[in-house]
Amino acid sequence: MNNNLGKIIGVLGGGQLGRMLIQQSIDFNARFHVLDPAENAPCRHLCEKFTVGNLLDFDTVYQFGKECDIITIEIEHVNVEALQQLANEGKTLIPDPKALAIIQDKGLQKTFYAENEIPTASFCLINDKNELRQHLDLLPAFLKTRKLGYDGKGVMPIRDENDIEKAFEQASVLEQKADVKTEISVIVAKSLDGETKAFPAVELVFDPVYNLVDYLISPARLSNQQEKTAQEIALAVVNKLHSAGIFAVEMFLTQSGEIWVNEIAPRPHNSGHQSIEANVCSQYEMLNRILLHLPLGDTKTTSMSLMLNIIGSDGFSGNAVYEGLDEVMKLSGVYVHLYGKEQTQPGRKMGHVSLLGETVQELIDKMNFIKKHLKVKA
Amino acid sequence: MNNNLGKIIGVLGGGQLGRMLIQQSIDFNARFHVLDPAENAPCRHLCEKFTVGNLLDFDTVYQFGKECDIITIEIEHVNVEALQQLANEGKTLIPDPKALAIIQDKGLQKTFYAENEIPTASFCLINDKNELRQHLDLLPAFLKTRKLGYDGKGVMPIRDENDIEKAFEQASVLEQKADVKTEISVIVAKSLDGETKAFPAVELVFDPVYNLVDYLISPARLSNQQEKTAQEIALAVVNKLHSAGIFAVEMFLTQSGEIWVNEIAPRPHNSGHQSIEANVCSQYEMLNRILLHLPLGDTKTTSMSLMLNIIGSDGFSGNAVYEGLDEVMKLSGVYVHLYGKEQTQPGRKMGHVSLLGETVQELIDKMNFIKKHLKVKA
Repeated sequence: MNNNLGKIIGVLGGGQLGRMLIQQSIDFNARFHVLDPAENAPCRHLCEKFTVGNLLDFDTVYQFGKECDIITIEIEHVNVEALQQLANEGKTLIPDPKALAIIQDKGLQKTFYAENEIPTASFCLINDKNELRQHLDLLPAFLKTRKLGYDGKGVMPIRDENDIEKAFEQASVLEQKADVKTEISVIVAKSLDGETKAFPAVELVFDPVYNLVDYLISPARLSNQQEKTAQEIALAVVNKLHSAGIFAVEMFLTQSGEIWVNEIAPRPHNSGHQSIEANVCSQYEMLNRILLHLPLGDTKTTSMSLMLNIIGSDGFSGNAVYEGLDEVMKLSGVYVHLYGKEQTQPGRKMGHVSLLGETVQELIDKMNFIKKHLKVKA
Repeated sequence: MNNNLGKIIGVLGGGQLGRMLIQQSIDFNARFHVLDPAENAPCRHLCEKFTVGNLLDFDTVYQFGKECDIITIEIEHVNVEALQQLANEGKTLIPDPKALAIIQDKGLQKTFYAENEIPTASFCLINDKNELRQHLDLLPAFLKTRKLGYDGKGVMPIRDENDIEKAFEQASVLEQKADVKTEISVIVAKSLDGETKAFPAVELVFDPVYNLVDYLISPARLSNQQEKTAQEIALAVVNKLHSAGIFAVEMFLTQSGEIWVNEIAPRPHNSGHQSIEANVCSQYEMLNRILLHLPLGDTKTTSMSLMLNIIGSDGFSGNAVYEGLDEVMKLSGVYVHLYGKEQTQPGRKMGHVSLLGETVQELIDKMNFIKKHLKVKA
């Protein structure tokens, strides 16, 4: 097996996921070029070449990719046609643009689950409110725009007929609301040689206001059978995509004990941040191993952990100031990761904290202490 | 306590120690400027500003430091007068230039031990061979040039009178050879507020050819009393230096059970690399906490570990090629750190590997496998 050491890796997107990827890659002498629309993106000082440009523009993405040997993403919303063209010309694309095209479009993604008999919430594809009215049997439901949604943007609940008036007037997926007991995520790694490894499932708790991950617990509190099913489903989904890369498979454990796939992200994911400290090989090291064509790492957990997102506090916008860092950093087994974002705004992901501990209660207590003290103000 | 987040940290030296320091500092949004004589130094792409310049030149160091708020080092051989001038003008210097001046000069360093009743090998200061001949009572001994020595350079054994002919003709320390059972190192952290914390001792095994650390075992196999004495001596040395920073205190455990200080490094050190994976807070995170005026971290070990230096293989000079990386990276609990050096030469430190395990034998077996497979060729 020839490794890719010394080759140039291009990343579309220069946010926190790219930042943590590059941070780990320093250990492997990896060489990164980064494309991002923001001049002061979190990766700007950490790569050999930083280019400011529109990720959705064919020429920008194509010209950027031409200078690279291997191209990856840290955000899905990129020009997939340019990536396909680069793949056709012999570049190594991780993930494969065909897999990315399916995932980019929530309509194609849901159809892909249905076609491959992957358990998922019932859904239909609609184009406007009139079509929505023909599927009242799916309510209560969520309406999701097919493209460009993330972190709760492009998603709205449709509880009953009264909500239809404010519905999106664009191509969307109407998806039956699952009777969710727990949201879980399994990250799957697939090498260029087709080898796969799944990380143990984690349990996600969402912030009801911002619709972001508030915190996660690793490993998830599942029965052995549930863990096994979750891993099998995640591996099945990824194998059907026929692509190397890192894939976060977000799933619902329903009240009746079923596991349904919610959605996939074909890149490192918020649900894998804790793996930096709490798994033998982190999701970032794993993606670097895949990009560099090195053997996959060991996904085992080394400790129970909790990951808390640090988001901009309500009522503050502007130059970020971190309050309470001292109190938090006096605790043992607490790992603060800031994302290098100069500007804060309410709900913006500014960093995360990983906590190691021996019991869930210990972790929750530490988290509550941190939530009380650590604030991102301006 | 006001932290230093957002301030500019200058590092003199852009080698692997600076590289691992900056790698960790990404988590704290730290802003680094780096000065190094080599255009392609390991830190070149990882900082906000990289300056090529002579670390021993007053004006170069002074001008570099003027643009920074906090100034640190990753190599001792720097212009200490310029650092003192910057300190006088109100910059924060970590370590303090007065402490650095003592450590830079092995004659002053040994005199400092004697004056402060720190146990150390008997010695005398000499200027030439004639003076050496007056101290035959110290033989067998080591002769060390007072300035600019490192990694075995500037050191020679003087076993008996026959060795005197090839002795250095410059200001040197003649030091009685200790009857060494084990070489150990304790890293001490001291904050700007004067708080100190010591890491558990590690055990160092040197390469007899290159006089570099071959591997280390953490924690060291010491009795409780030996560990306590080692920690006390290390803390005593650092407290007498009156300086914030990270200090590696290298010591000899003699055959008769005494602990003598060999030498100090006022910076992150080869004997602390394993702390990245095997201690709650690594030596690099610790120095970043000190630089940023954040609370000191927890020095506890989380796992038994072994750190093996990866050096350039004999007979190869030129563009580095890493052979056997695949075999090594298939093992679980093995962390490869490459230093971003393009050129290899025999004995050059090109990276290190940290191994986690449950017994010393398991670690030694894994190490032997790695030594057999991993080669840096050209």
